[in-house]
Amino acid sequence: MTDVLTFLDALPQEIVITDPDIVASYSRDQSRFTDSAVPAAVLAPRTTAEVSACMAAAQRDSVVVIPRGAGSGLSGAANASAGSVVLSLHRMTAIREIDPVNRLAVVEPGVVTADLRARAAAEGLFYPPDPGSVAFSTVGGNVATNAGGMCCVKYGVTGDFVLGLEVVLADGRIMRTGRRTVKGVAGYDLTHLLVGSEGTLGVITEITVRLLPAPREAHTLVASFPTLESAGLAVSEIAASGSTPSMLEILDRTTVQAVDRMTKMGIGEDTAALVLVQSDDVDAASVLAGIEAVCSGVGAVEVVVSSDPTEAALLLEARRSALRALEALGDWLLDDVAVPRSRITDLIAFVESTAAELGLIIGVFGHAGDGNLHPTIIYDESDESSKAAAVAAFDAITRRALELGGTITGEHGVGRLKSSWLAVEHDETSMSVQRAVKAALDPAGILNPGVGGFAARA
Amino acid sequence: MTDVLTFLDALPQEIVITDPDIVASYSRDQSRFTDSAVPAAVLAPRTTAEVSACMAAAQRDSVVVIPRGAGSGLSGAANASAGSVVLSLHRMTAIREIDPVNRLAVVEPGVVTADLRARAAAEGLFYPPDPGSVAFSTVGGNVATNAGGMCCVKYGVTGDFVLGLEVVLADGRIMRTGRRTVKGVAGYDLTHLLVGSEGTLGVITEITVRLLPAPREAHTLVASFPTLESAGLAVSEIAASGSTPSMLEILDRTTVQAVDRMTKMGIGEDTAALVLVQSDDVDAASVLAGIEAVCSGVGAVEVVVSSDPTEAALLLEARRSALRALEALGDWLLDDVAVPRSRITDLIAFVESTAAELGLIIGVFGHAGDGNLHPTIIYDESDESSKAAAVAAFDAITRRALELGGTITGEHGVGRLKSSWLAVEHDETSMSVQRAVKAALDPAGILNPGVGGFAARA
Repeated sequence: MTDVLTFLDALPQEIVITDPDIVASYSRDQSRFTDSAVPAAVLAPRTTAEVSACMAAAQRDSVVVIPRGAGSGLSGAANASAGSVVLSLHRMTAIREIDPVNRLAVVEPGVVTADLRARAAAEGLFYPPDPGSVAFSTVGGNVATNAGGMCCVKYGVTGDFVLGLEVVLADGRIMRTGRRTVKGVAGYDLTHLLVGSEGTLGVITEITVRLLPAPREAHTLVASFPTLESAGLAVSEIAASGSTPSMLEILDRTTVQAVDRMTKMGIGEDTAALVLVQSDDVDAASVLAGIEAVCSGVGAVEVVVSSDPTEAALLLEARRSALRALEALGDWLLDDVAVPRSRITDLIAFVESTAAELGLIIGVFGHAGDGNLHPTIIYDESDESSKAAAVAAFDAITRRALELGGTITGEHGVGRLKSSWLAVEHDETSMSVQRAVKAALDPAGILNPGVGGFAARA
Repeated sequence: MTDVLTFLDALPQEIVITDPDIVASYSRDQSRFTDSAVPAAVLAPRTTAEVSACMAAAQRDSVVVIPRGAGSGLSGAANASAGSVVLSLHRMTAIREIDPVNRLAVVEPGVVTADLRARAAAEGLFYPPDPGSVAFSTVGGNVATNAGGMCCVKYGVTGDFVLGLEVVLADGRIMRTGRRTVKGVAGYDLTHLLVGSEGTLGVITEITVRLLPAPREAHTLVASFPTLESAGLAVSEIAASGSTPSMLEILDRTTVQAVDRMTKMGIGEDTAALVLVQSDDVDAASVLAGIEAVCSGVGAVEVVVSSDPTEAALLLEARRSALRALEALGDWLLDDVAVPRSRITDLIAFVESTAAELGLIIGVFGHAGDGNLHPTIIYDESDESSKAAAVAAFDAITRRALELGGTITGEHGVGRLKSSWLAVEHDETSMSVQRAVKAALDPAGILNPGVGGFAARA
């Protein structure tokens, strides 16, 4: 390896951070069970030109670069390795443009997603992507991981809103992809090749996103079910009914009870699952009336519907506090799998039996409408056998999702957490094409090696 | 070049077509001003395994392969070259699966798009893509070109519905991309790298598409405007108003008059532009009432609204007959550019002045809601100066679209028609990355060389 200090010396010193405490805080994201190390330094460029200078120097000096948004990822895609530098985009926070007529925004990668949503809302517009981290994750990070959220069931994922990008390649060259028009088919879709590529193909320095008209205030429904099967049936029937809820979430018994212990909401012990639905359609009241009938028809114990935003916030409290409630039970390892909607109950039932078998608590909550669930394994970090059981459960659940026709990751990404899983989901030809694409864009392998299941630097 | 006859001899003879008349009919698509030649043969495989055998043999024998759907393209992406073979997917027409609960379909590439739409409709489902060629073009061709249509303003383009693909690579290897779940972020998005790649990266042998619930019967509005500016203002105001029409089309004066001459609809000479709108929202009547007010407010001469499907069909007749009406005036060269919605009138005004300057008739119609317009140049194929003027107008319009912040192609693709334009729209780094991607997937350059603006075989 080249002397990283020489590399750093050649950069503008105002963008180089070497303070050991700060540098150490950039070692990893929010994932568990992923490798990381304190990087050699953090680079905090302010402009595309500075990002380009960083990458050109890194390529020349063979320095590994880990691009980073807010570090809120759950798969280790922003974890540093020894001798690497973390390239943090947190100083590039300008919202460069909001265009109401063409309904688009142009932003720098470090813009916090909630800030973009607020700015759009101020213009009567809507930027739908709402990952759980919306209040602190960045648009650049969301694009790099193709982040999801609760809106996806109606509005789609982050990538569905990306029209174009400015990207700095591994060798420092600057490239524009995509366009400002809503339609366009000129050339290969490099935009969506970059979306979700987890910092392995380039550093995103500007994002042009499509905006929607502001949605109506949503109506909310919460239904409790006596069995997992009845809740699953409700989700399937809602999906098949042709209605288009703007949210369709599920919480299993373990999660509901954890929430109840924490919040004292008084959800009965006999609740096997909660299903939460929102509709922002103009006829939301009648949409939810139809969904209420579906829920009652399959045996829901209680169904509460509200058009009042304050009441809705209370109704959604169980979903919002799910991860916090499970966290209170111990250390946690969050999985993120997606299955065809019709297989959700199969997956949840498998998780429950796995938990019983391995003597673990595993709560399941997530985006039922997309088949995207987050089994959350509670374990004891200080107990090696508990850790081993957690990993065994994680592996079993991920494998089961694949067997059910699903994917190893619905929205959190492959990162380092699931890099060994990529070749289980994808066939050998796909893996070889992905490796060829990686080699075409980053021949020296300096961008986030070890992430995404591609060969690290030789 | 290898002896193509030796290559053909090695293939199962029941998939090799050498009848000269049939082979000649596969020379080109529906584009004008594009190079083509009679291919050496047509291959008509029935299975993925046969496609794989064709490609493996072609790679071994260095035979150029031109993948082809229905041949209805308008950019020359399916044009044959001398010594090439056309690989036609017309025998792979199975709709393998319609899954109402998970709302997806799995089809072979040769399925006619209208057939998929009909099969989905029979299950109460909706496959939105509706290119003008919907009655005869294929899903595989639509995916390979990322085809658009009138639905896109609300529902998006073909690529927005593609969940996964089976693809045969240039060397015959078979690859699966994507997934059956609505969400998934495992690995690079090879699915959308293939979408719109015009047969230059692989041969698509199976497509998994997302379906929607069946839409409501649409309400229809047609407004006539005394000036182009007022029509453009209406489109901008509709776009900015936050309503979500399921169709938003425009016809300029030249097109309207051509339609009127052919159909005797009695559209007045004083109509400078027609704007056609549909809404399939549950509150379509009130949506169109709002749009009617917008149109009247900016000076529409006449606004007709109908909720009756038969009447709606009559109202839309002008749009449906636009190309046919312009065709009746002479030979035609159809452009396909997209600009930000706010620049539509700038582009149409430029087309009108270009037509006057060059002494040509140029009608403009298209998807105003997307900023995607089809200036249609009428010329005389037998007159060299008229041909030269047509090409000059085409080039001027395409350049102007770029100057207005647009793209050289909104939905028809680059093909051979605009291969020299790709490097005008995209920067050098993007072109070099696209070439690197092409080389990574098709190192021998046997798939559709000359299409898409990438280097042909050396």
